[in-house]
Amino acid sequence: MDQRVREHADVLVDWSARIDAGDDVVVAVSEGSHDLAVAVCEALGERGANYVAVYDSDEIERAYRRAHDGEFDEDPGFELSLYEEADAVLRLGRGRNTAAQADVAGETRQAHRTARTGIREARMDTDWVSTVHPTRSLAQQAGMSVEAYREFVYDAVLRDWESLADEMAKTKELLDEGSEVRIETGEQAVEMRIDGRTAVNSAASVAYDSHNLPSGEVFTAPYATEGEITFDVPMTVNSRRVRDATLTFEDGEVVDVSAAQGEQALRDVLDTDPGARRLGELGIGMNRGIDRVTDNILFDEKMGDTVHLAVGRSYGACLPDGETGNESAVHTDLICDVSEDSRILVDGEVIQQNGKFRWEEGFESA
Amino acid sequence: MDQRVREHADVLVDWSARIDAGDDVVVAVSEGSHDLAVAVCEALGERGANYVAVYDSDEIERAYRRAHDGEFDEDPGFELSLYEEADAVLRLGRGRNTAAQADVAGETRQAHRTARTGIREARMDTDWVSTVHPTRSLAQQAGMSVEAYREFVYDAVLRDWESLADEMAKTKELLDEGSEVRIETGEQAVEMRIDGRTAVNSAASVAYDSHNLPSGEVFTAPYATEGEITFDVPMTVNSRRVRDATLTFEDGEVVDVSAAQGEQALRDVLDTDPGARRLGELGIGMNRGIDRVTDNILFDEKMGDTVHLAVGRSYGACLPDGETGNESAVHTDLICDVSEDSRILVDGEVIQQNGKFRWEEGFESA
Repeated sequence: MDQRVREHADVLVDWSARIDAGDDVVVAVSEGSHDLAVAVCEALGERGANYVAVYDSDEIERAYRRAHDGEFDEDPGFELSLYEEADAVLRLGRGRNTAAQADVAGETRQAHRTARTGIREARMDTDWVSTVHPTRSLAQQAGMSVEAYREFVYDAVLRDWESLADEMAKTKELLDEGSEVRIETGEQAVEMRIDGRTAVNSAASVAYDSHNLPSGEVFTAPYATEGEITFDVPMTVNSRRVRDATLTFEDGEVVDVSAAQGEQALRDVLDTDPGARRLGELGIGMNRGIDRVTDNILFDEKMGDTVHLAVGRSYGACLPDGETGNESAVHTDLICDVSEDSRILVDGEVIQQNGKFRWEEGFESA
Repeated sequence: MDQRVREHADVLVDWSARIDAGDDVVVAVSEGSHDLAVAVCEALGERGANYVAVYDSDEIERAYRRAHDGEFDEDPGFELSLYEEADAVLRLGRGRNTAAQADVAGETRQAHRTARTGIREARMDTDWVSTVHPTRSLAQQAGMSVEAYREFVYDAVLRDWESLADEMAKTKELLDEGSEVRIETGEQAVEMRIDGRTAVNSAASVAYDSHNLPSGEVFTAPYATEGEITFDVPMTVNSRRVRDATLTFEDGEVVDVSAAQGEQALRDVLDTDPGARRLGELGIGMNRGIDRVTDNILFDEKMGDTVHLAVGRSYGACLPDGETGNESAVHTDLICDVSEDSRILVDGEVIQQNGKFRWEEGFESA
């Protein structure tokens, strides 16, 4: 076994999920992540934790969903108990074919998801963490050989998380203290309010309210957005390719949209509900171990020298107690490269220019 | 997908486990049984049942057990609840290497097993069924190509179970009404008492107290054994090969043992505890779909024209209420070919000669 698989498991168990002796841990093993599951359960054995391995197979779920009449039982008790009594859930993606469920009808998926709301909430109440093993299917989606993809994944995952968390704390502090963010790219600019909102230092650990490995972004919940921005990082939105989408905001709402490719996919998202036309998230990618786009949101949105805005639902962790923030059935991230010809300002002060933060060597404020 | 995989799934779900709409079913998927799991969950979807797929991997269990300090937590609650609240458990064997746990210390396995006694009992309280998918590892163990092994497995599994159950009911009736069984092979004979005991018609269905697919045997719990018998079907006992073992019984106990190969393996079993020297089971194999030895007890002991005796623990289903029968930590089956030069007698009456039952064409009583 590649020694990095074991290192990945150690980071997941110790840094991300903070597993202790006696913890009850569900390990969700996908079709392609057997080797990582072996290393994770070895680590759990060493720590004296308990495990149940569940088999999280897209091919099985497809077969079940297609065969079912669609009247799914609500939160079957045996599965609900498993998650209600678990301390942590470690999800090890992914399958052997990222399109395995392409022929399951949208209504069926939605009905199955809805029937399992209680199970999902029980899982989210644990110290859950999602990560991926570098499978052939993900390498293919990234347009890479599996060997090169492995290098990419381990560069992103095997970082000095403690020191990245310290650096991201600086960005969080600026956002927590600031009232307004302005993002300038080329001739465009977009502005949004962030006062009263709390940024999350997403440092790939439940200790930081962060549930993805890798992570490496700081995000908050903006509102009252004005201006125009073009997202030049290509994305897949509901299985459709979107390139160079431009959104125009007035009074916090999207009033115009255009794209070099996939404009209709975006229009469909924006038409879902009223909240889908407002922003739910502003995120600043700070993981420089992620140095290329791989068509996987778990990685793309954390890439260093990018920012992303999501239309739709906002995260509770960013909101004052009792506030619901922007509500929507969707949360669609769109990413912008800010490594060149770009500035991020908080309350009129430049905090990043051309990808360099103001505390970094080479930072020049124009 | 081979259509027989779907037929296997249908037999398992309908005939064996009797799954209904709304049933909560744990599907235990081993490393090699993905395709069968897809077919089983498709069948569960059609029936309107619910599933949780657990990943039953020897390689994961090995890594966990070896890494652990051996002080295992007793019956972790999250796993116990899963089985306590399940209606059925379908175990789909097997892994990619039947020797995957060969380097886990015996004490560690035993300690882990013992710590999970409550979980095991909860699982046995459901409508559980064990079956196997024809994997390469099992083909290798059988000394067969995977193609030939598939034919073998489906011949054993895809039977007219209803009519086999009817035929086995005749054997059960003879054993239930009888007081003494005598087995003659060549010059040898062994006799045992069965009065007061109830035979199980093991027809591969929970409706018959039968939890293996394939099955096809009738078994009871004998006692007061006298005489001598040679087991000419080769076996693997605790990873050691045993050939042509002869046991001699006096007053219900083994008083002499010899074997052409593996005698020490048998002596170790017999020395486990006092119950290990007495019989726990007499079984009569009646599945003629199983026509060769494959070094897998799930199949070998059900082979048509064989009988097997097990030293050690007897099954509760064969005993009068409140009786414990023969108690032992072991249950080791030994198999004898009775297709030639053999007779089985109940209370002095020949019920089978040279593999033909007395209700079959070609039966001749000498």
